Amino acid sequence: MRVPFDEIHDTLRRALAATGMEADRADLSARLFAEASRDGVSSHGLNRFPRFMRMIRRGVVDVHARPEPVAAHGALERWDGRGGPGNLNAHAAMARAIALGRAHGAGCVALANTNHWMRGGSYGWQAADAGVIGICWTNTLANLPPWGAADPRVGNNPLVVAVPRRAGHVILDMAMSQFSVGALASYRSRGELLPVAGGYDEAGALTRDPAAVEASGRLLPAGFWKGSGLSLMLDLAAALLSGGQATHQIATEPELETNLSQVFVTFDPSTLGPDRDRAADAVLEHFHAGAGDVRSPGERVLETRQTSLRDGVPVDPKVWEEVCSL
Amino acid sequence: MRVPFDEIHDTLRRALAATGMEADRADLSARLFAEASRDGVSSHGLNRFPRFMRMIRRGVVDVHARPEPVAAHGALERWDGRGGPGNLNAHAAMARAIALGRAHGAGCVALANTNHWMRGGSYGWQAADAGVIGICWTNTLANLPPWGAADPRVGNNPLVVAVPRRAGHVILDMAMSQFSVGALASYRSRGELLPVAGGYDEAGALTRDPAAVEASGRLLPAGFWKGSGLSLMLDLAAALLSGGQATHQIATEPELETNLSQVFVTFDPSTLGPDRDRAADAVLEHFHAGAGDVRSPGERVLETRQTSLRDGVPVDPKVWEEVCSL
Repeated sequence: MRVPFDEIHDTLRRALAATGMEADRADLSARLFAEASRDGVSSHGLNRFPRFMRMIRRGVVDVHARPEPVAAHGALERWDGRGGPGNLNAHAAMARAIALGRAHGAGCVALANTNHWMRGGSYGWQAADAGVIGICWTNTLANLPPWGAADPRVGNNPLVVAVPRRAGHVILDMAMSQFSVGALASYRSRGELLPVAGGYDEAGALTRDPAAVEASGRLLPAGFWKGSGLSLMLDLAAALLSGGQATHQIATEPELETNLSQVFVTFDPSTLGPDRDRAADAVLEHFHAGAGDVRSPGERVLETRQTSLRDGVPVDPKVWEEVCSL
Repeated sequence: MRVPFDEIHDTLRRALAATGMEADRADLSARLFAEASRDGVSSHGLNRFPRFMRMIRRGVVDVHARPEPVAAHGALERWDGRGGPGNLNAHAAMARAIALGRAHGAGCVALANTNHWMRGGSYGWQAADAGVIGICWTNTLANLPPWGAADPRVGNNPLVVAVPRRAGHVILDMAMSQFSVGALASYRSRGELLPVAGGYDEAGALTRDPAAVEASGRLLPAGFWKGSGLSLMLDLAAALLSGGQATHQIATEPELETNLSQVFVTFDPSTLGPDRDRAADAVLEHFHAGAGDVRSPGERVLETRQTSLRDGVPVDPKVWEEVCSL
């Protein structure tokens, strides 16, 4: 089932406005959710929206809270997200990091006390649309056993790296687990096995069954010890830069997950010299030259986006029905 | 066989001075090589030194070339490595990034036309010793097939993330391949299988045999599509920020690999507020609490360093004999 993008955007906007969220903020938050589904990331788009509404009703997300600067030193700023909507906070933080990058060549906003940013890639596209290189990451509740352990002690801490390019931005949006929690759910709901092992089953054996990994909670770090180590580094850097909480301090019940720490970094190479768009094109050309089905980060998103805007955004009928009733 | 650290440092310093390298630069370059072996990374320490000397003699590395700034905008600078020794260029670039981070809260030096930086972790320890968070990466010659292809089109582009901590810095130093080229050689020389699949053999089957992976050249990206995608992003960002070469432009013969592009980023959270060393300690305590053999990045390095300084640095007798004859 496909629904026009504007209809999804309008429906989500009305639901958010009904919570008391101010009109311009409801519009932006709804757009970010709708764009995630449009781009093929419905796990953090429409499919996530009912949970977001529940977290507003439970008071975990405060629709009126706006982020505030709490400390600044040149290109580096610390902001307090005050428990506001995660996608609005993250969008504001990246907007500020873009302004800092333009002013100082490089910019960094560290954001404490925020909520789940939904699709991390959104803020990568935002940076690239502004013509800057963007890197951002978030910590999460503990949902990933580090390499060598069976119990979740680190977050899967998504990392986004964005490079602008006229012919199509190159945007990497990756969790530190081999499969994000949303990806496991997507494979399960489609009745598919994972393409490679994604974690352990309850008996401790590696498995490609997404439901078995969800049941055990033993996700596999991407690259084994590598994803495990990188996850720890991202958590440390986010907590130290933002002054906020680290993963071990975050409530482990998913619908109570709050007070996350995030970092938004930008670099504006145009402040140093002429535009190097052709250099980026040449890298992509060589990446795609030759045999094999090789995809660059963000390539599939652009294809999915085009189809969604032409034919409508694919929605799960049950989810759409639920969202329409919110 | 173990050799005292100072004896290794002296031996390498004399060999470098004999090439005409200035005394202070020979001292620093030799120290960085010796420290890599001291810390357990002999693949980019003593074992790599004979090749470095050959590359000096072939004119690939110019011992007299010093890096120069070519463009600057606030916290972001572009430097030209001018084909100088890679470890000296990288050390100078990180030193400058540390100064920028202190002045602006965040700092970035992008370095073009440089040579292999040897152990990337060196510059992470350098940043952490200076009390700042450091992130740096390099591109390399094409030595890694992207996910979906069999021929090397991306580099294994090592990434370093460093967080300072009084009780022991936390330093991640990882290649984008599941095993670095140096790690494959180390496993092979010890006659060990890799702990997990590290690439494909000549027949295209996944294998844990390091020699088979070296023979085919088909290393596996860490996290499959994830390491492949992150590698591309690091190359793009390094080439665009530095104005230098991307992987596809770099000579593919290892001893002619030159004109690399690197990025050195620092953040100085102390410019924003009180020291958060105890917050970092708490993260590490929780990471290590509970069952399993869980190692944090840099932990093993500190243990190895202690043993090396007490008992001498482990060396391969044949390599040591060769180095002493240089």
